[in-house]
Amino acid sequence: MNKIRIGNKIRIGVIGAGRIGKIHVDNIKRHPRAQIAAISDLYVGDELLEWAASRGIPLVTQDSENILTNPDIDAIFICSSTDTHVQLIKRAAQEGKHVFCEKPISMDYRQTEEALEAVRAAGVKLQVGFNRRFDHNYKRIREHVQAGAIGDVQLVKITSRDPAPPPEEYIESSGGMFMDMMIHDFDMARFLSGLEVEEVYAQGGVLIDPVFGKHGDVDTAIVTLRFEGGALGVIDCSRKASYGYDQRAEVFGSKGSAASANDHPSTAVLSTESGVWSDKPLHFFLERYEAAYFAETESFVDCLLQGNLAPVDGNDGLAAERIALAAKMSLQKNRPVKLSEIM
Amino acid sequence: MNKIRIGNKIRIGVIGAGRIGKIHVDNIKRHPRAQIAAISDLYVGDELLEWAASRGIPLVTQDSENILTNPDIDAIFICSSTDTHVQLIKRAAQEGKHVFCEKPISMDYRQTEEALEAVRAAGVKLQVGFNRRFDHNYKRIREHVQAGAIGDVQLVKITSRDPAPPPEEYIESSGGMFMDMMIHDFDMARFLSGLEVEEVYAQGGVLIDPVFGKHGDVDTAIVTLRFEGGALGVIDCSRKASYGYDQRAEVFGSKGSAASANDHPSTAVLSTESGVWSDKPLHFFLERYEAAYFAETESFVDCLLQGNLAPVDGNDGLAAERIALAAKMSLQKNRPVKLSEIM
Amino acid sequence: MNKIRIGNKIRIGVIGAGRIGKIHVDNIKRHPRAQIAAISDLYVGDELLEWAASRGIPLVTQDSENILTNPDIDAIFICSSTDTHVQLIKRAAQEGKHVFCEKPISMDYRQTEEALEAVRAAGVKLQVGFNRRFDHNYKRIREHVQAGAIGDVQLVKITSRDPAPPPEEYIESSGGMFMDMMIHDFDMARFLSGLEVEEVYAQGGVLIDPVFGKHGDVDTAIVTLRFEGGALGVIDCSRKASYGYDQRAEVFGSKGSAASANDHPSTAVLSTESGVWSDKPLHFFLERYEAAYFAETESFVDCLLQGNLAPVDGNDGLAAERIALAAKMSLQKNRPVKLSEIM
Amino acid sequence: MNKIRIGNKIRIGVIGAGRIGKIHVDNIKRHPRAQIAAISDLYVGDELLEWAASRGIPLVTQDSENILTNPDIDAIFICSSTDTHVQLIKRAAQEGKHVFCEKPISMDYRQTEEALEAVRAAGVKLQVGFNRRFDHNYKRIREHVQAGAIGDVQLVKITSRDPAPPPEEYIESSGGMFMDMMIHDFDMARFLSGLEVEEVYAQGGVLIDPVFGKHGDVDTAIVTLRFEGGALGVIDCSRKASYGYDQRAEVFGSKGSAASANDHPSTAVLSTESGVWSDKPLHFFLERYEAAYFAETESFVDCLLQGNLAPVDGNDGLAAERIALAAKMSLQKNRPVKLSEIM
Repeated sequence: MNKIRIGNKIRIGVIGAGRIGKIHVDNIKRHPRAQIAAISDLYVGDELLEWAASRGIPLVTQDSENILTNPDIDAIFICSSTDTHVQLIKRAAQEGKHVFCEKPISMDYRQTEEALEAVRAAGVKLQVGFNRRFDHNYKRIREHVQAGAIGDVQLVKITSRDPAPPPEEYIESSGGMFMDMMIHDFDMARFLSGLEVEEVYAQGGVLIDPVFGKHGDVDTAIVTLRFEGGALGVIDCSRKASYGYDQRAEVFGSKGSAASANDHPSTAVLSTESGVWSDKPLHFFLERYEAAYFAETESFVDCLLQGNLAPVDGNDGLAAERIALAAKMSLQKNRPVKLSEIM
Repeated sequence: MNKIRIGNKIRIGVIGAGRIGKIHVDNIKRHPRAQIAAISDLYVGDELLEWAASRGIPLVTQDSENILTNPDIDAIFICSSTDTHVQLIKRAAQEGKHVFCEKPISMDYRQTEEALEAVRAAGVKLQVGFNRRFDHNYKRIREHVQAGAIGDVQLVKITSRDPAPPPEEYIESSGGMFMDMMIHDFDMARFLSGLEVEEVYAQGGVLIDPVFGKHGDVDTAIVTLRFEGGALGVIDCSRKASYGYDQRAEVFGSKGSAASANDHPSTAVLSTESGVWSDKPLHFFLERYEAAYFAETESFVDCLLQGNLAPVDGNDGLAAERIALAAKMSLQKNRPVKLSEIM
Repeated sequence: MNKIRIGNKIRIGVIGAGRIGKIHVDNIKRHPRAQIAAISDLYVGDELLEWAASRGIPLVTQDSENILTNPDIDAIFICSSTDTHVQLIKRAAQEGKHVFCEKPISMDYRQTEEALEAVRAAGVKLQVGFNRRFDHNYKRIREHVQAGAIGDVQLVKITSRDPAPPPEEYIESSGGMFMDMMIHDFDMARFLSGLEVEEVYAQGGVLIDPVFGKHGDVDTAIVTLRFEGGALGVIDCSRKASYGYDQRAEVFGSKGSAASANDHPSTAVLSTESGVWSDKPLHFFLERYEAAYFAETESFVDCLLQGNLAPVDGNDGLAAERIALAAKMSLQKNRPVKLSEIM
Repeated sequence: MNKIRIGNKIRIGVIGAGRIGKIHVDNIKRHPRAQIAAISDLYVGDELLEWAASRGIPLVTQDSENILTNPDIDAIFICSSTDTHVQLIKRAAQEGKHVFCEKPISMDYRQTEEALEAVRAAGVKLQVGFNRRFDHNYKRIREHVQAGAIGDVQLVKITSRDPAPPPEEYIESSGGMFMDMMIHDFDMARFLSGLEVEEVYAQGGVLIDPVFGKHGDVDTAIVTLRFEGGALGVIDCSRKASYGYDQRAEVFGSKGSAASANDHPSTAVLSTESGVWSDKPLHFFLERYEAAYFAETESFVDCLLQGNLAPVDGNDGLAAERIALAAKMSLQKNRPVKLSEIM
């Protein structure tokens, strides 16, 4: 029997052991140069303990301070509720720990700016959870755009539809369609085009379920964007696509277009007397972005190991939040809103 | 040798022997129950005469009155320039002839209304040249919508991109992107959804060629629509798609979506070391809508023979013109414009 | 009113006014340089007369000799039953008329050779009705192969499935699956690859309807081919594909592959909770090869006008017949059969 | 800090730490109810030790007996060269250990039968490494067939092409195209159709590289199959598809067809003036069947945990080997060979 000493690994603590926190834990475990050191959650019950044991997590705690102050931890994943993000980022920065934070950083871009300031002051890295940047389809579009294959960007189109609305308790505190759901799409618009948004116009409606209206939210929206330099963009968004998660994008430019389609559980096509039938798209974000979640973690770990810049950082988080706020204002006032008005 | 007498045919005169007029002539000739009686054009030269002879057209004239007053002619196709449409419709109506008129009827919706009034007063039929209603792909989407397959309409998306910009002399007198090009898409939005448009917001830019700006026009636009009942729509439009004519639509509703893709010259796919390659879309409207142009003529002839209503009539023409005018105003004022403001 | 003299047109007589004969008549009529001079059919009734009148055909006759000996006729389309082809080709050749003949020329390749000899002796042109050579998809594959895009041909795959079996009376006299149906595919194998077949092995079965077995025929078959130089091929064939006419091909070579898919009535895709649905392929050969039938006629007329070689000639007809005979023998003997054995 | 005791895990030893052995190790590690206990390889060097350490494998040994006789090991993965499989299966069975064995079990079906007999006698389970049975696309076809969606099976078509030929040293000892490469396809033919093969006819050639001929092998082949009950099948196979790994299948029956296409790295489509481009298929088996390899391991572990039958067992391995032997004989004799001749 032989053993060898392994190279240093990044030791990670995860705050918030909900659905997304657990995904990150499993992805950290799969990374050969990372290890999971601890998780915290406000509620530690048998189920969580059993789950943590099955993953071999050495420490499960209710108090995130046990993680933040742990000298054996290099980086923190913040997967708790949005209202805790800013405070946790500041604490992590104070403790000199690198941060991966789920989106959005906050509902108030001024608080986000404070968090970014703390990160800058501490010299730690901050990556924001825009997992779609690591999706194979969007990345490929971005590559085509960056390679100049489509020339100058003129139009950006994004379709973003969930398979089913969230429960009412989620809707209440979600921050609304623009901040909760379309924030990913606003980031995609910036990522795919490589351009900053200057003006937005948002149309929305309650077409699926009155519960959205009850909480001052919409369930269906079209947001048009004007980018610096004059390119145009449009995002259409729905809380319920009966056929499943619909995630497509297209960037059109002076030399052509690059467009992606949905991913499906299989390529199988059934042809019968009644038509030609194929699978619905992959059901929801866990299935569709499974590989992207892993790639996002991989990328964070690699940037820490190699001392690189975070591939999607606090400024990206802030930019998307400001677009979301502009869209919200546009919907309320039914007029285009410039990003420069958000201040 | 045997001969039999054929049943009555609709006898048609075509005013305007440009590209679109010639297409209509060939399609009329292919219809077993229609015959071409005459064509007129402001300029009758050898080329036109030779072409007319090859089609066996008995009369070629410079003066459209020779057609309008010809008692052996049942119906007129108006394929001359837009500024002549209203006057010709009125004359045809006076002469008791049915009318097929290319789009738009006019640039001024009040004049269009006058033409419609003349048509109503004379009791003749008027069909407007919205050929895309007869396209196999759009028709199929419409069928799915009408059959209830997608439930209540919530979103309508249309992509409309030309392969190359028109020459400058065309741009000057075209009426601009909204009236010249997107008028088809505004009609599609109404046709596919079965809903009336209540409000539009238009974004546009000169991203392809400054010549558009010189004439106060745009070459790239995104127009969002709000339909009666709250459904939303968006049309993106470009004067130049390097890869060819891009004509797609999608209607999304409470039970699903119906979407069309482009048509291609072949289904052949070439796979080599450098990638998987397939044909560009059919080049332009003549190729893509070849069958639709025939079906449109067929439909007009059939409605005359059977005494049915025109499948797409003056009111459809008017409605699309009013949306185009609203879009134009929206672009100028950079604010949403209600259709009720167009009066 | 003006008239001009049109250039000479090819004057064509059609022998056999069944389904395929009528298609050819309509296509001849659409060609600006061809005109239909006469049709003959063994049975001339009111229906045929009415149809002929609607097409403006000047002569309808029961006796093909009235066509063959007519000095005002330049070329003959032979669309009568297969057992009349050889005799009619010989007569047309004697009369110095060019011939378009439906496939197969005959069931007996020695008789076919006699017909070809008569054609050669008379110096007239003979085109065989392998319409698929003019299909947009197959042509595109052939272009890729000819352009060297796939390198040296190594594999040829053809799928050929009818939507429904023919009636029993057709089966009785059809010549069997290989001669009636797959003869097109044997021609495609030669056309797409540009190679001659040296050996075939046929497997077949009666899996759809015992009526095929009753007449010594099969309804399902797989035929493998060995081409000169060693490339391999395979054709799968069925008399009944519930989902419609299935016509696909692929040529694979040292540098890649070129493959075609089916054509469909529309590109519309319906996505609902129960899956993603699209149209079945175009129903049958009339729909799928509508454009190919016209292109085939166009090509024949053009070769006469320009004095070119027929694009698909008697030798192509003969070659496909010999492959069909070899396949038949292979099925009977359950062993591979060399083409050199067919003599 | 809290800990809980985890339920029993299957403890696995892997014999053979080549490419496929390492894949299995990583997949075993990902399974929450399995753990890797040891690996053995004929050559244990620094690279292997380092790799093993990075995976936390407690034991690395040169002698497979250390694994076979280890009382703490429940099951063995045999990933060593084919000539060792039979002996290792027998040893594992003697030691009462369950076995996962890579394909083929052996080149000599009588030896395979001996190994199966040992497994039966010992009452252990044996799963054979036909990973494609766990591929999302093939599984979906199988589901459609089993659900009766395509009716009675009439035709089975499989395309199986590698992106590049293996090195000469591999070719020498591979067992030839039928036993090495097509054995997967023979298994697929049985799996997808649910039918046994009764007769095969193989055509093959050396079209890619003479090195195959030098070792009495072919690099291109078409094998036709006759199944019990009369259904037909065909597999086309190439050692080099320039555009990448080509893995498709279709099952056609009385009610329709179920067909799969290749998987691709992304759905992105680039449309430019020069055409419409998309990604080549996933490069090779490691990429294409990545998920299938995990699912295969998962399935083996689950069958051990739950006491179920192995989802693909020794008899499946034996059946595919016998088809491969029949295909080899058919190629040599250039005649169809019945499976009953292989004995």
